[in-house]
Amino acid sequence: MSKAIDFYFDFSSPYGYFASTRIDDLAAEYGRKVNWHPVLLGAVFKTTGGMPLPMVPLKGVYSYRDFERSARFHGIPYQRPANFPLATQTAARAMLWVREQHGESKAVEFAKAVYRAYFVDGVNISDTDSIASIAASQGLDTAAVIDGANSAPVKEHLKADVDAAIARGVFGSPFVIVDDEPFWGFDRFDQLEAFLKNGTI
Amino acid sequence: MSKAIDFYFDFSSPYGYFASTRIDDLAAEYGRKVNWHPVLLGAVFKTTGGMPLPMVPLKGVYSYRDFERSARFHGIPYQRPANFPLATQTAARAMLWVREQHGESKAVEFAKAVYRAYFVDGVNISDTDSIASIAASQGLDTAAVIDGANSAPVKEHLKADVDAAIARGVFGSPFVIVDDEPFWGFDRFDQLEAFLKNGTI
Repeated sequence: MSKAIDFYFDFSSPYGYFASTRIDDLAAEYGRKVNWHPVLLGAVFKTTGGMPLPMVPLKGVYSYRDFERSARFHGIPYQRPANFPLATQTAARAMLWVREQHGESKAVEFAKAVYRAYFVDGVNISDTDSIASIAASQGLDTAAVIDGANSAPVKEHLKADVDAAIARGVFGSPFVIVDDEPFWGFDRFDQLEAFLKNGTI
Repeated sequence: MSKAIDFYFDFSSPYGYFASTRIDDLAAEYGRKVNWHPVLLGAVFKTTGGMPLPMVPLKGVYSYRDFERSARFHGIPYQRPANFPLATQTAARAMLWVREQHGESKAVEFAKAVYRAYFVDGVNISDTDSIASIAASQGLDTAAVIDGANSAPVKEHLKADVDAAIARGVFGSPFVIVDDEPFWGFDRFDQLEAFLKNGTI
């Protein structure tokens, strides 16, 4: 059995969202499983000196255009959210809690629902009530998810996961590592596929 | 006749080099000409707060790997240069002078020779003697090219071109503008081609 693919993403990242709509199918085609790792770009940027795209002069304006054009080009539903970027700790912690309690596949379903809520339905996913609603839509116990997401162990867990990601060289979203080969960006999915197919590039 | 494609690049940019090996053929396929615009990323970064990729923590290490992998993936000859990044004023000014004296196609041949010298043959193109050798290899009058590149009008010309590029929103290399639609990065050449083909995305 081939090793699982590590898929790192921030819930506030449009390119991470685009990748989230493709990664499972792509992996399955080559007999791989995917481990989904929510990370916090804010913490990553403290290491790299990066900043959210919309805040970068010139690049920010271009980025908004590129998000929409890339979505159309790849046929992915996308609606520019009113609040962007935003804090994703609660969403990430809730996902970790769902995984602990209900396993990977339920956690991935939850993550996809969070992404859809944000990038398709315009929901402000930094808001705890919104995360509660998304949890409810997935048949989860709302109060338990929010309590779990706010619990000290889950907070510690996310912090440790983000530190581990940075230690592996993760500096953006999406970021995929397969057999120690790193791929940054949805626009490297063509190379990722070639690597999955041939084991080398 | 369709409008020409504006192709902006820095001679020290690997992705700009990759793009330089494809842009003319791609444009020709869709009945377009290409206007080649050497720019200085150093000047651009003063506006955007950007910095050369190798200097960015984590991203820098990844970038070197991505340059080599992308070259292999696209079948483009590439050898990591010992001096990277480096100053490209002399190369850019020499290209402008060649265009003034000998026209666009000779200038583009010269630009391609500069890129090859740097990214295939490992020549330090920040060095005036290297630019002179490249000029000689293109059948140009070496002393005239160097004198021209160092002349006040050519220096002013490059400065005005870089300012104009920034004013159009150019913030990286390669950067392509076609019918006012901007494309940043060699990894947007798939979208660029779709746009050239369909006039929209």
